[in-house]
Amino acid sequence: MDLTLSTDLYQLTMACGYWKAGIAEQRAVFHLFYRRPPFGGAYAIAAGLDDALTYLEELDFSPEELAYLGSLRKEDDTPLFPSAFLDSLADLRCELDVHTVPEGTVVFPHEPLLRVEGPLLQAQLVETTLLNLVGFQTLVATKAARVCDAARGQGGEREPVLEFGLRRSHGPDGGASASRAAFVGGCDATSNVLAGMRYGIPVKGTHAHSWVMAFDTEREAFETYAEAFPGGSVFLVDTYDSLEGTRVATEVGAQLRAAGHEMVGIRLDSGDMAELSIGARRILDEAGFPAATIVASGDLDEHAITALKERGARIDVWGVGTRLTTAYDQPSLGAVYKLGAIREEPSADWEYRMKVSSTPAKRSIPGQLGVRRFMRGGEWVADAIYDETLGLGDAPLVGPETGAARAVPADAEGHELLRPVLAAGRRTDPAEPLATARERARASVDALPAALRERTTDARHFVGLDARLARVRESITESHREKHR
Amino acid sequence: MDLTLSTDLYQLTMACGYWKAGIAEQRAVFHLFYRRPPFGGAYAIAAGLDDALTYLEELDFSPEELAYLGSLRKEDDTPLFPSAFLDSLADLRCELDVHTVPEGTVVFPHEPLLRVEGPLLQAQLVETTLLNLVGFQTLVATKAARVCDAARGQGGEREPVLEFGLRRSHGPDGGASASRAAFVGGCDATSNVLAGMRYGIPVKGTHAHSWVMAFDTEREAFETYAEAFPGGSVFLVDTYDSLEGTRVATEVGAQLRAAGHEMVGIRLDSGDMAELSIGARRILDEAGFPAATIVASGDLDEHAITALKERGARIDVWGVGTRLTTAYDQPSLGAVYKLGAIREEPSADWEYRMKVSSTPAKRSIPGQLGVRRFMRGGEWVADAIYDETLGLGDAPLVGPETGAARAVPADAEGHELLRPVLAAGRRTDPAEPLATARERARASVDALPAALRERTTDARHFVGLDARLARVRESITESHREKHR
Repeated sequence: MDLTLSTDLYQLTMACGYWKAGIAEQRAVFHLFYRRPPFGGAYAIAAGLDDALTYLEELDFSPEELAYLGSLRKEDDTPLFPSAFLDSLADLRCELDVHTVPEGTVVFPHEPLLRVEGPLLQAQLVETTLLNLVGFQTLVATKAARVCDAARGQGGEREPVLEFGLRRSHGPDGGASASRAAFVGGCDATSNVLAGMRYGIPVKGTHAHSWVMAFDTEREAFETYAEAFPGGSVFLVDTYDSLEGTRVATEVGAQLRAAGHEMVGIRLDSGDMAELSIGARRILDEAGFPAATIVASGDLDEHAITALKERGARIDVWGVGTRLTTAYDQPSLGAVYKLGAIREEPSADWEYRMKVSSTPAKRSIPGQLGVRRFMRGGEWVADAIYDETLGLGDAPLVGPETGAARAVPADAEGHELLRPVLAAGRRTDPAEPLATARERARASVDALPAALRERTTDARHFVGLDARLARVRESITESHREKHR
Repeated sequence: MDLTLSTDLYQLTMACGYWKAGIAEQRAVFHLFYRRPPFGGAYAIAAGLDDALTYLEELDFSPEELAYLGSLRKEDDTPLFPSAFLDSLADLRCELDVHTVPEGTVVFPHEPLLRVEGPLLQAQLVETTLLNLVGFQTLVATKAARVCDAARGQGGEREPVLEFGLRRSHGPDGGASASRAAFVGGCDATSNVLAGMRYGIPVKGTHAHSWVMAFDTEREAFETYAEAFPGGSVFLVDTYDSLEGTRVATEVGAQLRAAGHEMVGIRLDSGDMAELSIGARRILDEAGFPAATIVASGDLDEHAITALKERGARIDVWGVGTRLTTAYDQPSLGAVYKLGAIREEPSADWEYRMKVSSTPAKRSIPGQLGVRRFMRGGEWVADAIYDETLGLGDAPLVGPETGAARAVPADAEGHELLRPVLAAGRRTDPAEPLATARERARASVDALPAALRERTTDARHFVGLDARLARVRESITESHREKHR
């Protein structure tokens, strides 16, 4: 899919404005970040960044796209874009330098997930598409991490979570990219075949109610399915009556066993799944199928899974759809992309830029930013946001919303979250396997302090600004106040 | 985008099961509908149906797709799909007969938006993709209709609503298809350039905060923008202070006027927009710009627009983003696709099929269904769902959830909502212009009784089953009860 025009018109009118004003080649640095952790939690899982890089590498206005732009008119019916500007777009190739956190990284509010540097025109032009790609996938990866974190056995071991959300996703691509992000966030497989082919995610699935309804009896439906897939039968038992269906499944399972195969299990999709799973477990065990798994699906999310576990549900595998891939309880991360600094040419000094607001949380952070994460003996100490020019000093960090100070112990080990991934528009390294991002997310969530993993929490990891950067931000805010007094 | 594999794996395993069982060529009829009106309202606006037809027409397994399916393995590491089955998929072309309501039609719970008839294998295979395409677009078109219905002046005239949601949409296609659906639902334009090119939707937009931040002063930013787009300047005034920004805009507007151009207006994007718009209106009027429009954006939806109007906001144009294109307060319609009847061959009688449930609302409606809408003198009387074989009788209709009876007056005029659109997999007519669907939606919403247009309402349009169909449904439910007694 060509994403060059998957952007807001104003990115193009601004590009044209910069071009007309002769400042298109000024250098700018933008940061993509979010302000509030989604779903009432304390963290997010970065995702969609590799898709963002692919978009940037492939940025290219085709003749058809330019013809369309050339056809647009202003209110006075004159062309919106001068043809010389469109000619310049025809030659445009991405020259941006980009840093990102690796996909699957735990990220906190105000930390840049992505830093874009280069010609003002280009760095501005890509805003909408980057927000669209990274915002949505980060949201779904975070939801998946929360769901998978809830789906743990009594010893804390992770139970399989399957993503089943395509039918309720926002368009085909809203489905495929949600499947990708859900996998990064920790899911084990998807039902989405296109996502399986495109991203190498394991695909899973068995049959639907309509399979059962296509036959005269549930037994005939199960027998026919077992005959077609003797080694891979999960019977959906709730078309008519879940426990009765489970009994029928065990009888078909016995036939399968006589023929040398084992049924894999059953799926519950409606009703009181705590009670039904306990009943189904008993029926399966008594019929000699203690290894048969119980899959549950139907409006599940981290809250429903936790509630089912609290009620003693005997569910082995979790099928999670709508509430995961639409991020049902918060369908937007609210990611933003803000200008941090500008300079006339690459050799000049950066001039700080920030969005001033009467709400401290809405003030952006000026500079060309880096993020250093400090750990000590496996404990999360603090994350520091600093300006590359000013560096990261030893003075206590300053909370960007509260102003609270926090010193980083001298023996804490820091590592940089942002890595250079695109130089002058070209990848510096090949894309990593998606499974690597997934392992990173799972390991990071496992390592988080319990308070930050709570489903709903006011706990926050300390993210602070370098003290000098905080003073710069304060003085810019102050000078705006002066100006408007 | 090739959507053939944008489906759940189980559609393919079921297809394989039908093929193995020798029943792939049995005839089936499925219906796509929703059960509860979204957003607490009383209606939905059908959308996405033309995209669904394009998908069906283009259904085709490529060698690459078949190779991928051939690579899938069962738990015992044997191939999931026999190669003879994959060979049959290579030859598959859509043979389905499809009826739909026209896009932009007001539809109520339980009414089929789309009816699919044809070989069981094919009619089942397409479920997920149809739900994905039609469910999402119907949801967004409905949201757009509600937003546009709220955006009316004191005389009831519609005010312009611009859709700005791409950056928060669910992937690029979640954005483009949301823009399409928002236009069908009544929006006037989109910021999404790709949607503009693809669907011919008018595109709109001016500049962002980062434009203002790229210059040393707001005045310089506005002047530069005015110079670049003298005939099309809407100045975003809230980067530093909305009212101060409005004053600067009037000064630049005066310069523009001296040069023979008129500024179009200003945009407010944060703060108390009732108060700010009243203040900005006064500043604009006093400075001699009574015709300058005030555009508002920022977390708007039908509720926020209504609240602003109640507070006397002086807003002329509404920019609606996140809450529209993500359907923020209900990001899934919960559309379903249910088998209604099956027969061994085209000449045989249909055998009814239905999903039985202890919840009346969740019982599906058996048959090969039609929908007739009855009006009398411009008043909405009732919608009747009937089975094509049984026909629509004169006896009172029966509510599918409540069992309530309602007679249709003899002088009511009925018209069929479902129209044949695909015959043996090919369109019977060319696609209609999107603007036609939009006009249909706007006219239908305008004609709805006030009670059904309330933002939150328990009022329902009466949708009833033909009396004989209701008895068939009752008797199938009863026989299932008997069976499980």
